[in-house]
Amino acid sequence: MRQSHTILTIQTPGAGLHDFTARVVDWCAGQDVTDGLLTLFCRHTSASLLIQENAAPAARRDVERYFARIAPESRDYEHDDEGADDMPAHLRTALTSVQLSVPIIGGSLALGTWQGIYLFEHRRRPHRREIVLHLIGE
Amino acid sequence: MRQSHTILTIQTPGAGLHDFTARVVDWCAGQDVTDGLLTLFCRHTSASLLIQENAAPAARRDVERYFARIAPESRDYEHDDEGADDMPAHLRTALTSVQLSVPIIGGSLALGTWQGIYLFEHRRRPHRREIVLHLIGE
Amino acid sequence: MRQSHTILTIQTPGAGLHDFTARVVDWCAGQDVTDGLLTLFCRHTSASLLIQENAAPAARRDVERYFARIAPESRDYEHDDEGADDMPAHLRTALTSVQLSVPIIGGSLALGTWQGIYLFEHRRRPHRREIVLHLIGE
Repeated sequence: MRQSHTILTIQTPGAGLHDFTARVVDWCAGQDVTDGLLTLFCRHTSASLLIQENAAPAARRDVERYFARIAPESRDYEHDDEGADDMPAHLRTALTSVQLSVPIIGGSLALGTWQGIYLFEHRRRPHRREIVLHLIGE
Repeated sequence: MRQSHTILTIQTPGAGLHDFTARVVDWCAGQDVTDGLLTLFCRHTSASLLIQENAAPAARRDVERYFARIAPESRDYEHDDEGADDMPAHLRTALTSVQLSVPIIGGSLALGTWQGIYLFEHRRRPHRREIVLHLIGE
Repeated sequence: MRQSHTILTIQTPGAGLHDFTARVVDWCAGQDVTDGLLTLFCRHTSASLLIQENAAPAARRDVERYFARIAPESRDYEHDDEGADDMPAHLRTALTSVQLSVPIIGGSLALGTWQGIYLFEHRRRPHRREIVLHLIGE
């Protein structure tokens, strides 16, 4: 049994779902682990991780619009030092998650056919985000 | 230290919370691991995993009604190829989670007294769902 | 590779976000693990775990008010045996999470600069909560 880790840096162009499944798969492929557990951890409080439908762009746009609606920009937040999109970003992060673990079986991530791994950027402006990948297995 | 894995197939009768704690406990019991970490991973984007109250059926019905209310069926979604219950299913999955890890201590899952492990089916019709179980420990 | 575990008991004064990052860091420091994976598991259905902004108390108050608003106390729940704050507590737990895994790299939790680990108490009265910590690494 052994482990390895890395930090992926993702430059987001602005709010929305950004598919980075291929980068995760590529890194895992280089670790020579047949069976194990991959953990992804997003080091931010205004961006999160989400597994979503990887085929229909319309579904992702609906997800983005939904979170914009249930955790909207508003003048009613007490915390607004960093702009109107800051507090909704914390709320959307809380409603989703900053951590995700995916088993590896037979050399592949055990994702379902329609599952992609997305970074969900919640701020309007471009950001540089860090995702820690930790792999344990053999 | 060693690991093992399996895939549980669960036939859901339709939307709602389905308790499968017993199947998880049974599989773990056969792995001869005293201390470790169990990870459950749902390979779908329209069904999710949830730990919920295992004693009061009324509490589970309230949970089901709540998610039906905050992520309702609607004509306003752009993505509707697979029916009116498809996009709400993706949203309810995003609001809960497809992954869950539970420590194993002294041969037992470290669940609290009132915690059960549920598959939360979000589609109206019966579906065959796959849950990957990954166990590492000794 | 080896593992260790403990159970942290946290006495909550009532509803709200309670930072216990320091207790987690302290326990990990005593385990002599340089690289690994820490998993936190909350053994309750009316309290949850949340990583949130650790600098601005106003942001935490906004988070508390937000969850009180989207999963409010109400007479419309079927389950109300344990009081008006019970069913909203289950819903707020479902919207957040009872489990969280954080990689350990170079002897430190891989948290971002602004991330703190919070117990999110959803009941009004003080409660004694148990959080299982499981660490695997070397």
